Amino acid sequence: MKNSIGREIPDELLAGGREIFRGNNHRDGYGYTKAGPKVRAAVKPQESKVVPTLRAAIEACGLRSGMTVSFHHHFRDGDYVVNMVMREIEAMGIRDITIAASSVGSAHDPVAAMIESGVVTGLQTSGIRGRMGEVVSHGKLATPAVIRSHGGRVRAIEMGEVHIDVAFIGAPSCDEFGNARGKGGKSDCGVLSYAMVDAKYADRVVVITDTLVPFPNFPPSIESVDVDCVVVVDEIGNAKKIASQAIRISQDPRELKMASDCARVMAALPYFKDGFSFQTGAGGPSLAVNRFIEPVMRERGIKMKWALGGITKPTVELLERGLIECIVDTQDFDTDAVASVHENRNHYEISTSQYANPMNKGAFVNKLDFAILAALEIDTDFNVNVVTGSDGVLRGAPGGHPDASAGAKCTIIVTPLVRGRIPTVCDRVVTVTTPGESVDVLVTDYGIAVNPSRPDIARALDEARIAHTTIEALRDRAYGMVGVPDEIAFGDHVVAIVEARDGTILDVVWQVEAHDA
Amino acid sequence: MKNSIGREIPDELLAGGREIFRGNNHRDGYGYTKAGPKVRAAVKPQESKVVPTLRAAIEACGLRSGMTVSFHHHFRDGDYVVNMVMREIEAMGIRDITIAASSVGSAHDPVAAMIESGVVTGLQTSGIRGRMGEVVSHGKLATPAVIRSHGGRVRAIEMGEVHIDVAFIGAPSCDEFGNARGKGGKSDCGVLSYAMVDAKYADRVVVITDTLVPFPNFPPSIESVDVDCVVVVDEIGNAKKIASQAIRISQDPRELKMASDCARVMAALPYFKDGFSFQTGAGGPSLAVNRFIEPVMRERGIKMKWALGGITKPTVELLERGLIECIVDTQDFDTDAVASVHENRNHYEISTSQYANPMNKGAFVNKLDFAILAALEIDTDFNVNVVTGSDGVLRGAPGGHPDASAGAKCTIIVTPLVRGRIPTVCDRVVTVTTPGESVDVLVTDYGIAVNPSRPDIARALDEARIAHTTIEALRDRAYGMVGVPDEIAFGDHVVAIVEARDGTILDVVWQVEAHDA
Repeated sequence: MKNSIGREIPDELLAGGREIFRGNNHRDGYGYTKAGPKVRAAVKPQESKVVPTLRAAIEACGLRSGMTVSFHHHFRDGDYVVNMVMREIEAMGIRDITIAASSVGSAHDPVAAMIESGVVTGLQTSGIRGRMGEVVSHGKLATPAVIRSHGGRVRAIEMGEVHIDVAFIGAPSCDEFGNARGKGGKSDCGVLSYAMVDAKYADRVVVITDTLVPFPNFPPSIESVDVDCVVVVDEIGNAKKIASQAIRISQDPRELKMASDCARVMAALPYFKDGFSFQTGAGGPSLAVNRFIEPVMRERGIKMKWALGGITKPTVELLERGLIECIVDTQDFDTDAVASVHENRNHYEISTSQYANPMNKGAFVNKLDFAILAALEIDTDFNVNVVTGSDGVLRGAPGGHPDASAGAKCTIIVTPLVRGRIPTVCDRVVTVTTPGESVDVLVTDYGIAVNPSRPDIARALDEARIAHTTIEALRDRAYGMVGVPDEIAFGDHVVAIVEARDGTILDVVWQVEAHDA
Repeated sequence: MKNSIGREIPDELLAGGREIFRGNNHRDGYGYTKAGPKVRAAVKPQESKVVPTLRAAIEACGLRSGMTVSFHHHFRDGDYVVNMVMREIEAMGIRDITIAASSVGSAHDPVAAMIESGVVTGLQTSGIRGRMGEVVSHGKLATPAVIRSHGGRVRAIEMGEVHIDVAFIGAPSCDEFGNARGKGGKSDCGVLSYAMVDAKYADRVVVITDTLVPFPNFPPSIESVDVDCVVVVDEIGNAKKIASQAIRISQDPRELKMASDCARVMAALPYFKDGFSFQTGAGGPSLAVNRFIEPVMRERGIKMKWALGGITKPTVELLERGLIECIVDTQDFDTDAVASVHENRNHYEISTSQYANPMNKGAFVNKLDFAILAALEIDTDFNVNVVTGSDGVLRGAPGGHPDASAGAKCTIIVTPLVRGRIPTVCDRVVTVTTPGESVDVLVTDYGIAVNPSRPDIARALDEARIAHTTIEALRDRAYGMVGVPDEIAFGDHVVAIVEARDGTILDVVWQVEAHDA
C-alpha cells in the first residue's frame, strides 16, 4: 500500500494495526490514553537503593528473555553502558531482548554479534551506525528494526506502543536514592533529556553511575521516585568522547558560503525578527550559520528569544553575548554546552517530550521559527534521507530532524550538492526520514531552491534579491557533475521500519547483501 | 469491621473494594499499574493556548455534570480560583461535580452552598475548614468526603483511584503555551508542588493566571506539554493572604519551653548528627524549634543536610546562615520562603509525589530523620487527630502530617496539654489522622512521653537526663485540669472517610447535628 508520499509499505507490516503515513498533521486532535508503568511500591522508609553489582540489579528487576530494555545516548561515542549491560544480560543466558535506545552507534559494535546470536532480536532506535547498522541491513535481526525521531520515540513510549520492562540509565552522578544528573561526575554529559521518559514509563529503572554523591543530588534529571536500583561502576563512559571540544566552525569556504547564504535566506523572511527562535543541527555548515546571523542580528538590533535542540559552543556563545535570551537543551554536543547548562541560569534542560513529542499537548518544536538542518540526500519532492547511505546501508539517525522540521515555520536544509561521487539532490531518496512537506528551503553550494508549497518564501527571497532556482535544476546540476546514481540492489526483506513522528509508517528499509559475506 | 488501630469501619464502605488499615507498611512492595490521562494530541504547530474566557476553557475541556475537577491550595486563604471556577460551573448549569482539591478552607465558603444545592456532590481533599467543614459535617454532601494526606492524594491520583477530568491550576505566571510557575506574577506563591500531579494525570488541564509572560516561562512547575488551555483573569488571589509576612516565632513562654524541650530531645538522639534531615510544621512551637536547635548545631559543629516540607522564614534563615545545606520545598508559607525558592540555588521545588507519595519508588519522607509536628488531639495509643475539632466538626487538615511522621526516624508531636477547656492528650481522639505507630515522642508543656514502641529513644533520653513520663500520666494530668471530655453526640451517617496514606481506611467521620439548625 502506498502512503501519502508515494512509498510502498508492504501489507504485512500493516497487519498489527499500524497505519501508513498520511501527512504531518493527519493525527492532530487524536485522542488516546497515556500508558503507565507497573510500579512496585516502596512504602517502608529506606536509606539506599544501591545494589552491589549490575547483575544484582538485573536480577532485582526480574529481567528475563523476551523483555525490552532501554538506553539513552547522551554519552554518544563514549558510551560504556549499553555494552556493559548487554554483556551481563548475555552472560546470564537471557535471550530474545529488544533494545529500545534513543540511539545506537559504533560504540556498540559488540552488540552486533548479539544480534547474530539471538540475544538481541528487536531494536527500536533513532540512530543506527557501525556494525549494528551493517548486521541489521544484512537481515540478521529477527524482527524489523523500528527507527523513530526523538519526538516519535517519546510518543511511542507515552502511548504504550513501546513498553520498556527495564530502563538502564547511565548517569554522570547519582545519589543512593536514585536522583540522577547529567553533571557532577567524572564523565559529564550535561543533560539526561532522552532518559527522562524512560524513567517515567519503564516498569523498572536502574541508574548506573560512576560517581555516587550525597543525597539529595539536586536538581535531578531523573527523580528517585522512579528509580528501583542504583549500581556504581568504575566508568560509565569515556569523557573525551562524550563531549568533545573539537566541534569547530567550518573553515571550508564552500561550507561557509552555504552558511552565509542560509543566514541571508533567514534574514529575508518575516520570522527573522526580535524574539525569534532557532534550532540548528551539529554539522559544520549548520553551526556556521550562528556566526553569520550574529552580525545581522546586531545590525537590526534584534535578539533571539530561545534556541532549541542539541547544543554546541556557538549557541552558548550567543547566549553569553546576550544575543539569545535562553537555551532550551535536550543534548550537549561539546564541553562548552555541558559547562553552560544548569550553570547559566538561562540555559535549561528539557525532556524530549517537551522538546518534540508530536502527540502531547504541544512541544517546543511546535513554536519554532527556524530549523537549520542537514541531509544525506534530498529529492525533488523535498523528502530528506538522514538514515541510509547511498549503498542502502543504515548509518544515520533521524534524531530531531523530522520533529524540528515539522514544527518550524521555516525549515532550511543546508547541504553540498554532491559528496564525492554521490549526488545529494536526487530524484528519489533511498529512504525518507523527513517528508518533503516539512522542508521549505534547500541551500546548496550551487544554489538555493524553495519548496513550491511556500510561494511566500519565494516571494520574500525575490524581494531581497536572493537568487533561487528549482530543486529539479539542482538535481540536474548534481547528476551532470557525478552522473545518475545506480539503483541499489535491494533484497525483498524489510529490515527496518521508518516511523513518522505520529507513529504511522513513513518508509521501510530493505535488506542489502553483505559485500564482505 | 475494626481496623488495626481499633476503629470501626462500616462494612458498606468496604463494598467497593476498599480495605481497612492494617498498619503503615502493610502495602510495602505492592504492585500496580500507574494511571494515564486521556490526551488530545496537538500535532499541528500552534502559537497560543490562550482562550478568551474561563467559560470558553470549560467548554473546550468538555466539562459536564458528574465529572471531577481539581484545584491546589498554594494560595491558601487568598485563593480566588476555586470560587471563580465553581461559580462559572454553577452558572453553566453543570451539577454533580466532585471537587478533588489538595485542600479547601474558609476562602471557599461560597462553595458550601453549592454542596447544599447539589452542584457539588463529592469532595476529595486534605484540609476542610470553614463553612464547607460545617455543611459536610452536617451531612449535606451527597457522598462521604474523602480526606487524604498530601502523599495519599498523589498516590490516589497516580493509582487511578481519583480520576481528574479537568484540572484548574491557578498560576502566578504563565506563558501563552501553558508553562506555569509559582513566581513571576503579582500574587506569587513560590511553588506549585500540589498541582504537578494534577497536570500529569488530569485529562484536561486549564491554567488560570493573572500574569501572562513571554514564552518560555522557565523553569516551569507545570509544563506546557500537559496544558490544554490558558485563561487570563484579573486576579487569581489576594497576595497578602497567599504569603503573609506575619508568621513569627512564638513569644509565648509555654510555647518556647516546649520548643526548647523538643530541641533537647532531638539533640539527645543518634539521628542528630552532621547531615541530618528535618521537617517542621508551620505552627508556633514547631517553628520555634528552629531557633533552639541552631545553638546546639553550632556547638556541635554539625549542619543539616536537607529541610523538607512547607517552608517558613526560620528555615530559610538557617539555609542562608549555612546551617542547612538545602531546602526541598512543597509549599511556601511566607514571603521569605517565596522569595528564596528558585532564587537561592539550594532551595528546590519538588512535587508532592517526590515529597510524600507512599507508593512510588521512594519519597523524601522515607529518608527523613526528624519530623516535628502539632496535634489537635493525641490519645494514649499516640494516635493523632488534626482534622476534627472537639465538637466533631471538620476543621483541619492532615496535610503532610501522616506522611512525614510515617517516614521519619523520629516523629515528635509538640502540643500544649490542654487548649482552653479541651484536653489535648486523651483516651481516644475523635478522629485518627496519623496512626500511633508513626509517632515516637510527645512534648507538652507539662512533660514528655515516649511511645513504648521506642525503648531506644527512652534510653537515649534517660542517658541525657531528660525527664519523661507515660502518656497515660499526661492524659491524667490533662483530665485533672479540665475534666474528662463529654462524648460527642454523633449521628449514624458517615460524612467523611479518612484514608491512610496507602489508600486503606484509617477512620471515618460521623455526622454531627447542626447547632444553628
